[in-house]
Amino acid sequence: MDKLDTVLGPALAVPDAAALDVMRLSLADWLAVGLAGTAEPVARITRDLALSEAGAGQATLFGGGRVPARAAALVNGATSHALDYDDTHFAHIGHPSVAVIPAALALCEVQSCDLLRAALAGCEASVRFGLAFGRAHYQTGFHQTATAGAFGATVAAGQVLGLSQDRMRHALGLAATRASGLKAQFGTMGKPYNAGIAASNGVECALLAARGMESNPEAVFGPLGFCDTHHCDGQVSENTGFLMTQVSHKFHACCHGLHATLEALELLKPVDPAQIRRIEIATHPRWMSVCNQPSPTTGLGAKFSYRMVTALSLSGHSTAALDSYSDALCADPALIALRDKVHVTAQDGLSETAANVRIDGAEARFDLAAPLSLAQRTDKMRTKIAALMGGQADAVWQAGQSGDVAAITALMR
Amino acid sequence: MDKLDTVLGPALAVPDAAALDVMRLSLADWLAVGLAGTAEPVARITRDLALSEAGAGQATLFGGGRVPARAAALVNGATSHALDYDDTHFAHIGHPSVAVIPAALALCEVQSCDLLRAALAGCEASVRFGLAFGRAHYQTGFHQTATAGAFGATVAAGQVLGLSQDRMRHALGLAATRASGLKAQFGTMGKPYNAGIAASNGVECALLAARGMESNPEAVFGPLGFCDTHHCDGQVSENTGFLMTQVSHKFHACCHGLHATLEALELLKPVDPAQIRRIEIATHPRWMSVCNQPSPTTGLGAKFSYRMVTALSLSGHSTAALDSYSDALCADPALIALRDKVHVTAQDGLSETAANVRIDGAEARFDLAAPLSLAQRTDKMRTKIAALMGGQADAVWQAGQSGDVAAITALMR
Repeated sequence: MDKLDTVLGPALAVPDAAALDVMRLSLADWLAVGLAGTAEPVARITRDLALSEAGAGQATLFGGGRVPARAAALVNGATSHALDYDDTHFAHIGHPSVAVIPAALALCEVQSCDLLRAALAGCEASVRFGLAFGRAHYQTGFHQTATAGAFGATVAAGQVLGLSQDRMRHALGLAATRASGLKAQFGTMGKPYNAGIAASNGVECALLAARGMESNPEAVFGPLGFCDTHHCDGQVSENTGFLMTQVSHKFHACCHGLHATLEALELLKPVDPAQIRRIEIATHPRWMSVCNQPSPTTGLGAKFSYRMVTALSLSGHSTAALDSYSDALCADPALIALRDKVHVTAQDGLSETAANVRIDGAEARFDLAAPLSLAQRTDKMRTKIAALMGGQADAVWQAGQSGDVAAITALMR
Repeated sequence: MDKLDTVLGPALAVPDAAALDVMRLSLADWLAVGLAGTAEPVARITRDLALSEAGAGQATLFGGGRVPARAAALVNGATSHALDYDDTHFAHIGHPSVAVIPAALALCEVQSCDLLRAALAGCEASVRFGLAFGRAHYQTGFHQTATAGAFGATVAAGQVLGLSQDRMRHALGLAATRASGLKAQFGTMGKPYNAGIAASNGVECALLAARGMESNPEAVFGPLGFCDTHHCDGQVSENTGFLMTQVSHKFHACCHGLHATLEALELLKPVDPAQIRRIEIATHPRWMSVCNQPSPTTGLGAKFSYRMVTALSLSGHSTAALDSYSDALCADPALIALRDKVHVTAQDGLSETAANVRIDGAEARFDLAAPLSLAQRTDKMRTKIAALMGGQADAVWQAGQSGDVAAITALMR
């Protein structure tokens, strides 16, 4: 069994209930962040290009319109990553859902399929290809969301199309020559574009392989192949079981360095903000230069401020909602008064994923590395979706849980 | 002036007559090899995918049909490289025309433009980006046709769209995250696919930049950019003038190692094959293991046989024509008798690009490295196009010479 088969075996295995449950969460999450991202410039620009090209109405776009699956995958990938609020897998450091789900969904609109299972196979494959590409690949400058994501999207698309093992290998050989994406785009529209590139590449490679296109499947792991040329130093995992169960979801629409603090605050609630005298936050030193703006005046600044997000959270504003991070709330006198009671210190002994919070006499600690139960993840995800979707929240949640293509696409247009 | 401007300046300069003359040759050549490649499997498969997607009839496909420019560029790039009979630039080792012309032509069908000038700018840019990427980039496994080609196609597409300097830089920033293509595909349909990828990437990046998409233009030459991540060791050339004038055209539909011999034979003609007693060919030792099949029985074998192509040439069969390399001619008794009079020897002192041929008392030497005059190139190109196109040859030649979009696309459908 060669490396390609070693990756594909566990990814294409019959999924267990726990893996499907997590995929349902990721699907609902993907739908919510995609709908919330529809008005972003990168979403509008890619959608406008696809609509100008028109063509067979195979697949639905976020924001409406139906276009060929290959074009839809690019738009929906870029749109769902536009807010950078989607899921992350830290094993290889990539965003699985935004690269894979748009590819699976677009082709599931063309022919009936099990969307949850195809998406899970693709996400799992992307994590496993990413592990094989390794940390050197990422550190050199390749964006695993785009590169590993293209291979994952190809697997998802190939499963929807029912590719044979041989055809799947040719599709992945094509992906080896098609995959691309650089971290140098971070901070520009090029980052969400990378997710769209991955999704579109997956659809294209699977469709071409289905039509008989021949490639060199050794172009992934063999001589002069993708691994040889893209600074890969990882290992193909021999473990079975779905690594996708360990995917992380973002539950707050702000810098990741603030999330442990926000979770610790939840443990101290309810608390009456009017009675608070002093709030102390201890965090890992690395975050002090990242997200400790003491007195932000803009919504963007608030996303990088321990003091401001603490004031928002304790005053009942949802830190999962995009519009909680506004210039207006940064100027609110009551929030400013509460913010000024917050004192942030760096503490060497803490892990990067942990925070200690003390409100007067009460203290709580949270570590993001601690596993969450499905019930806890479900609660937090429903809170996030409610914050993003308002009156549509239940429908979005149900569509994601069901994996029903018609229900999902009805919400997108 | 940064590196991006140093590449763009000479590429976008007002072209001189000599550069345009060469571009006219390459355009006619591209049209002929594309038309001749239309029935190849990779052409059929990519065209079928594009036709199944349909959409705005912006651009013409080799083999007929009109589809969006982005899709047409992929099909026409793959189709024109299907026979591997297109032009080559040895400065960076890439095929400029098959990546660039499909991008320029597709968008010239959308809005009026100077096709020859846009194609020249793109081809020139691809050579200059390729020189900056360098030999290490190629030796590591990247296919310059695909990678440097994507940047060249972006420049050509951007020029057709009239992008400002700022928008062109954003388009090239997008190309930095979109460009891909591996030599590991050589020998499969993945090789011509790489040319289509480049052309399509160029159209997509230019169209997105024209619509306002922002990227990181430093993603080409800056930190963690394309050069940093893709094993580049080249230099940005400071020279002005069009390097594209040194492009090489293929005048025989067989292994490049045979071409100097075939040119030397031309110098000895006319000669009556019935009178020949002995033919001696001296070539560089490296070719002995590449293209010295002594007694091929198939058309494919004939493409790698000094003895067989010599018999074909001296008997009046065109070595520029695809159907001269047939199983039937390999079995022809008169050709076999002539073939068996040919004796091939390796000669250490010869350059890789040279051959010595002696027919009885007469001797000729040819070195492919020697520059050809425009008149010589024109003669040889017209012979090649006549061999490939038959009755359509004059129309193909005229269309390429004129750079007229309507005349070119009328022949494609």
